[in-house]
Amino acid sequence: MSVIEVGQQVVTMVNVFTVAPENQRRLVELIVEATETVMRDVDGFISANIHSSLDGTRVVNYAQWRSVEHFEAMHRNPLVHPHFTDIRAIASPEMHLYRVDYVEEVAAVR
Amino acid sequence: MSVIEVGQQVVTMVNVFTVAPENQRRLVELIVEATETVMRDVDGFISANIHSSLDGTRVVNYAQWRSVEHFEAMHRNPLVHPHFTDIRAIASPEMHLYRVDYVEEVAAVR
Repeated sequence: MSVIEVGQQVVTMVNVFTVAPENQRRLVELIVEATETVMRDVDGFISANIHSSLDGTRVVNYAQWRSVEHFEAMHRNPLVHPHFTDIRAIASPEMHLYRVDYVEEVAAVR
Repeated sequence: MSVIEVGQQVVTMVNVFTVAPENQRRLVELIVEATETVMRDVDGFISANIHSSLDGTRVVNYAQWRSVEHFEAMHRNPLVHPHFTDIRAIASPEMHLYRVDYVEEVAAVR
């Protein structure tokens, strides 16, 4: 379970991958694999939340890191590079870092 | 506070707006205004989570709806149209609907 809230000590990465529908499942598997074998042990990792679009053409990784510095250090970690190479072979990432400005929740679904 | 979790009865909309940095604040205000004046009262709305990119060029609305049908009915609601017009005057949306496939959280930040 991950939480979106204003004022948390996190930086949010939203990475939208464009993918051919026939590769969408494989892409989700590769990102899960990268998360489980490397990312979750990297200093500053908080969460990864992997979503697949209903139309088959996108995968979103909504990830939370402790700080921009932690996120940038992850990119210098050689263990992550083979995973990025595998992912980029079948998908085009579009990645930005964000702050949370506003949260409105009207109905608890839990 | 919004929660991302596998198996919730929600459909997730991720809308990535491309915007000129000088309009990023105004765009966030317009999406907050649309959420507070219309969206949160629409049947099936669960949450809106508005993020601004640190580089100034993007705004993400990560929103949760009860179902695809609720989300589509919202688009037929005439009250929302003026808000969409104002938003599109300064930003280009790229919107898809998603299911949550996988959540990994290693560090509670709360």
